[in-house]
Amino acid sequence: MTFPVVGMVGGGQLARMTHEAGIPLGIRFKLLSDTPQDSAAQVVGDVVVGDYRDLETLRAFARGCDVITFDHEHVPTEHLRALEADGIPVRPGPDALVHAQDKGVMRAKLDAIGVPCPRHRIVADPQDVAAFAAEGEGFPVVLKTVRGGYDGKGVWVVDSAEEAAEPFRAGVPVLAEEKVDFVRELAANVVRSPHGQAVAYPVVESRQVNGVCDTVIAPAPGLDETLALRAEEMALNIAKELGVVGHLAVELFQTRDGRVLVNELAMRPHNSGHWSQDGAITSQFANHVRAVLDLPLGDPRPRAPWTVMVNVLGGDYPDMYSAYLHCMARDPQLKIHMYGKDVKPGRKVGHVNTYGDDLDDVLERARHAAGYLRGTITE
Amino acid sequence: MTFPVVGMVGGGQLARMTHEAGIPLGIRFKLLSDTPQDSAAQVVGDVVVGDYRDLETLRAFARGCDVITFDHEHVPTEHLRALEADGIPVRPGPDALVHAQDKGVMRAKLDAIGVPCPRHRIVADPQDVAAFAAEGEGFPVVLKTVRGGYDGKGVWVVDSAEEAAEPFRAGVPVLAEEKVDFVRELAANVVRSPHGQAVAYPVVESRQVNGVCDTVIAPAPGLDETLALRAEEMALNIAKELGVVGHLAVELFQTRDGRVLVNELAMRPHNSGHWSQDGAITSQFANHVRAVLDLPLGDPRPRAPWTVMVNVLGGDYPDMYSAYLHCMARDPQLKIHMYGKDVKPGRKVGHVNTYGDDLDDVLERARHAAGYLRGTITE
Repeated sequence: MTFPVVGMVGGGQLARMTHEAGIPLGIRFKLLSDTPQDSAAQVVGDVVVGDYRDLETLRAFARGCDVITFDHEHVPTEHLRALEADGIPVRPGPDALVHAQDKGVMRAKLDAIGVPCPRHRIVADPQDVAAFAAEGEGFPVVLKTVRGGYDGKGVWVVDSAEEAAEPFRAGVPVLAEEKVDFVRELAANVVRSPHGQAVAYPVVESRQVNGVCDTVIAPAPGLDETLALRAEEMALNIAKELGVVGHLAVELFQTRDGRVLVNELAMRPHNSGHWSQDGAITSQFANHVRAVLDLPLGDPRPRAPWTVMVNVLGGDYPDMYSAYLHCMARDPQLKIHMYGKDVKPGRKVGHVNTYGDDLDDVLERARHAAGYLRGTITE
Repeated sequence: MTFPVVGMVGGGQLARMTHEAGIPLGIRFKLLSDTPQDSAAQVVGDVVVGDYRDLETLRAFARGCDVITFDHEHVPTEHLRALEADGIPVRPGPDALVHAQDKGVMRAKLDAIGVPCPRHRIVADPQDVAAFAAEGEGFPVVLKTVRGGYDGKGVWVVDSAEEAAEPFRAGVPVLAEEKVDFVRELAANVVRSPHGQAVAYPVVESRQVNGVCDTVIAPAPGLDETLALRAEEMALNIAKELGVVGHLAVELFQTRDGRVLVNELAMRPHNSGHWSQDGAITSQFANHVRAVLDLPLGDPRPRAPWTVMVNVLGGDYPDMYSAYLHCMARDPQLKIHMYGKDVKPGRKVGHVNTYGDDLDDVLERARHAAGYLRGTITE
């Protein structure tokens, strides 16, 4: 057969779940993983252990792959250009991916194409942060290193110039943003293929705890249809203008005055799309695979009125497997997704999905299961 | 973490799809495969290449597995007993599995527990076949070698004693059965766990072409509720009486006079249950994994009014991947499941699932996709 080989750089849970979604399509999956114990490396047949920051490692890995895609956004842009120059399709390509790697580049581009963002500019030092605050509503101000942050890391909320010293210590450019007075956070997930086909998943509500995604509700409850449509169109437009190939997650603030502002972009399957594994006709992982192979995309519509995803974070005791007995017996419809990762407190080690007609019931079931797996609920 | 290792003997598509279903549960999957190119060996990380007919190979494979299960029924019964004596849980165990390995043992047991079967007995030679015919409605008579047959192989339909020579040539006992005057074939799929929990999938209609499963419709259209319930209860009763652990497929004849008779048993995920991957809340593969690990079973109920599975057989040209473009663009809801096998004419190389509210539409979509992939439909 002439089935293609998809090369996945990065061995985390996104790679693991993309492999799972690729199996039914009969595609070959090749993994570049930091260690043989990484989440995806445990379940993939063709694994290369190596450092994605090393160009020759990447080049050797890419030989025999029909396309390269990613579990994370940390591959140096110049390495991606080198692979493209070697003739390997890189999806998303470096010209798109840089917008998910560098928040400064992202903000400049979104401004240029007229996408609403929080007020922002690059700041030089703590005095400049005070000046930025004075230009708007004052403190608090959000500071972000333009590269390297995720899940609340690389992000500070400061109330004065005195508190603003730390972000500058790394020597990386720092972006200042207004602290948006938001009602809630939303996410608009879209998938785009090289030939320009795109699909939009329903806009979801994303609830964070301590800067980490905790709960996703699909679709976002009570969201005004016009606002939902505006958010979907915005995400499709960003995907097109930035030349994204594959999955794009657009994290949004819904403001008190009825606007949506872009918070972050991710160009890969995203935590806010995990609900789609059990809640949509085609999952974000299946559509990401189809997009990077330039295959026609699958239907992104929901299969149930409500789907809820709750992350399972590492708790105080390491044995999550024994909790299966209670969780599965209590809820025969529960969908557990574990990543094969060692439990460390606060680390994302899995998630659960529930779906059904009654949102309160669906929420309760997901929260109970995630809490029981973590050990914060014991009955 | 203390997640268990499931050892799967056999590298076919059933092992491949069981691995896929086990990934979200975070269980470790270890495969004993005939070759590194086998369907499952392509997508599993931990693969041992070896011969399942060799006891020492099995023993070495079983070390480090928490439980052993199977992709096929061909492991010698005495080897399974040896593994059990070594302290390895074998699920289903040899006392159950022998009923799926030996059609003579199966018929004797079903008679003993009062399950309706076609009229049958072991026959000694062609003259004895003629005697068997004379004891009932005469020829035609169905002859089966008691071991080693599948997909129509090892089965003969004969019209006279003269035609009955071949089945006896292998030197294996031969079972004679009346040729049942059936309206259609059904299958009752159930899953049972070691602690005795069991779930029943809706009874499906299974349509064969040249002795090979072609189409499965879930649930069986127009099936009388009483008859459906009787078939489910019969399958649950067989699972209990035979001590089955894991998935049990009971293939049935629906007779013209309104009875159901058992045709065959399979103790593993089965072609008649593939629809459940996209059509049921919990797939047969996920429930098989849960059963062999003695975890509570998942909900087997359908997610859509109708789900149709059509097998993709190898056709005349080897490139099925290029057919994806047409199939996926035509039907964004289509679910393709390919096995990574080389195309040989008539060989099962994949299947498609479709689901929806309108059976005619669901059937048409599945048939079109399977036909297009095979190459018998070109528009």
